[in-house]
Amino acid sequence: MSDEEDMVVTPWEVRGKVDYNKLIRQFGTQPLTDELMKRLQKHVGELHPQLRRKLFFSHRDLDVILDLYEKGTRFVLYTGRGPSGPVHIGHLVPWIFTKYLQDKFKTRLYFQMTDDEKFVVEQNLKLDETAKLAYDNSLDLIALGFKPENTYIIFDVKDISLLYDIALEVAKRVTYSTAKAVFGFQDHTNIGWIFWPAIQAVPCFIHTKLTGEIVPSLIPAAIDQDPYWRIARDIAPKLGYYKPAQIHCRFVPGLGRGGKMSASEPETCIFTTDTPEMIKKKVWNAFTGGKPTVKEQKELGGNPNICTIYQYFLYLFEENDEELVRLSRECKSGDIVCGDCKAVLTERITKFILEHQKRREKARDIVGEYSISRN
Amino acid sequence: MSDEEDMVVTPWEVRGKVDYNKLIRQFGTQPLTDELMKRLQKHVGELHPQLRRKLFFSHRDLDVILDLYEKGTRFVLYTGRGPSGPVHIGHLVPWIFTKYLQDKFKTRLYFQMTDDEKFVVEQNLKLDETAKLAYDNSLDLIALGFKPENTYIIFDVKDISLLYDIALEVAKRVTYSTAKAVFGFQDHTNIGWIFWPAIQAVPCFIHTKLTGEIVPSLIPAAIDQDPYWRIARDIAPKLGYYKPAQIHCRFVPGLGRGGKMSASEPETCIFTTDTPEMIKKKVWNAFTGGKPTVKEQKELGGNPNICTIYQYFLYLFEENDEELVRLSRECKSGDIVCGDCKAVLTERITKFILEHQKRREKARDIVGEYSISRN
Repeated sequence: MSDEEDMVVTPWEVRGKVDYNKLIRQFGTQPLTDELMKRLQKHVGELHPQLRRKLFFSHRDLDVILDLYEKGTRFVLYTGRGPSGPVHIGHLVPWIFTKYLQDKFKTRLYFQMTDDEKFVVEQNLKLDETAKLAYDNSLDLIALGFKPENTYIIFDVKDISLLYDIALEVAKRVTYSTAKAVFGFQDHTNIGWIFWPAIQAVPCFIHTKLTGEIVPSLIPAAIDQDPYWRIARDIAPKLGYYKPAQIHCRFVPGLGRGGKMSASEPETCIFTTDTPEMIKKKVWNAFTGGKPTVKEQKELGGNPNICTIYQYFLYLFEENDEELVRLSRECKSGDIVCGDCKAVLTERITKFILEHQKRREKARDIVGEYSISRN
Repeated sequence: MSDEEDMVVTPWEVRGKVDYNKLIRQFGTQPLTDELMKRLQKHVGELHPQLRRKLFFSHRDLDVILDLYEKGTRFVLYTGRGPSGPVHIGHLVPWIFTKYLQDKFKTRLYFQMTDDEKFVVEQNLKLDETAKLAYDNSLDLIALGFKPENTYIIFDVKDISLLYDIALEVAKRVTYSTAKAVFGFQDHTNIGWIFWPAIQAVPCFIHTKLTGEIVPSLIPAAIDQDPYWRIARDIAPKLGYYKPAQIHCRFVPGLGRGGKMSASEPETCIFTTDTPEMIKKKVWNAFTGGKPTVKEQKELGGNPNICTIYQYFLYLFEENDEELVRLSRECKSGDIVCGDCKAVLTERITKFILEHQKRREKARDIVGEYSISRN
């Protein structure tokens, strides 16, 4: 079986070598073209590294969002997190991008903490555990510098009274047959999980309930979450809303060979609560594109394309494009070896995480200010 | 096809001639035996006419409820209403019985107004309409004399924040396959309807959340609602609760030939908002067991067993058993004719409804005192 045949991408599983062009065809989304990037650039000034490097690579209706924006209709941002464990760097990458969009477009963000979903989907998680994780995860979001003035965190269970009426409107219009086709539900799927796509659709539309304004929402998220919005997009016009637009990113790789960074393989993840020792150990054990010995590396050069260390520079830890090109060139030529890169990355991740941890602790005092149910 | 083969009884449909003994076998419930009636009588003093006349005829675990009660464990009552239209006398009959149980056992009642259910099930009802109906219907409940001290009305949509966590606990433990088998869900059923049995189970268990007490609930309801509690009964032990017990009543007949009183045939229903003229017209057009002419009736006598007027005396408008027997006897002998009974019933219903309407108007001022979300 080839790597490509082995590719499985659903909201609950990403497996095999991911072919992003194939995902665009398979999910029926649009590529983020240079032309669209130029339109974006007109509004944001400088393109974010995640755009320049095509880490965000696909979209639905981003052009429509810009059409409306250019005619004076604003949009809101919506993204979220399934709190099944601690937050790692892979989660932060699209959140950092979301904050960039929020800052540039001065718009409101609705962030959904899906403690209800994780409870019904994960056999072994209890409701108080997913609620606790939702709280902990929200500290990581706040630590990134989102401001309470335009950031509204939805804790599904706590805030259900705001969500339920819209969820019912959605649910009434989604048959079991449609939900089954989109999510692969089976006879043994529980009825909480089957209902849940209706809850996930709510933040696309909740801005209108809160403010009376009818504006579209733009969802930055990894492409595996796309199926949820297909249902929300089908329903939106029936309820008098705009279809939610999306901008899709790649999966942040873990530090092991292949696959996205996943909390189920903790040794390949940098969690936001890791100590400097843990970070150092994980980075030094990472899978790289280097040769077995320093001697061979210096003679033959390494392969940054398969190197997880290089991916980390690419995604988050080297914002300067010229520096990134230099790293790639010097790796290929054998001028630098894996130890060099690991030392630099360890230092940068450690600095980033230690500062994040300080802001994360301070977030405990202000988390209430971000609640969608605040007064 | 015989009448019996034609019998369809589900939570959404009652059709054909109902064979109550067959329903006991079909639903796997227990008959309300004379022995159990005697045990009840020990606690309540006088048996309610609806018990004496076997209008309540079946149960699940009523014996267990009495076992526990006799050892000092109280129980709570739970019943409800799907607010798809105005309340008619058929709805009041089990509520009146519920109040009798509440008064005799001095226990708390949880009453669920399922505006969410009616919204997802009824294609043409909007959410603000079912919410309005839930409010209107609650006035009828309060008009029956329930006291706020021990009556807690749950308006599902408004009160969802109290219900959702328990609903998730239930939903996680109910597969689609089980829900399909119990309720006959199909591929075109919407996902709101599929989830809803989890919401309906919540009031069985909510007393524990509110008070910390673990007590069983007893549900007085028409037997067509039985399937809901089968799921709640399966789940209860897994969540550390008692299985909800039930006491089942017959369907109150409409004023037409056959079938239960149903708002979908308004000319055969006495609504609580009907005027004296409407009541008179409906009663005088009712299907009776009388003969085509007064002459024939006087010679041959009538048949009270098929007479809807007689059923109304039986269910609600003649509490004196001897009077009821007299009516039956004099009908059969031709000593009274349909006009006699219709005149008496019109007078009694009119008096009842006019008084109900006065109390119903007063209920508007105090409905908030009954809300489960009151402080």
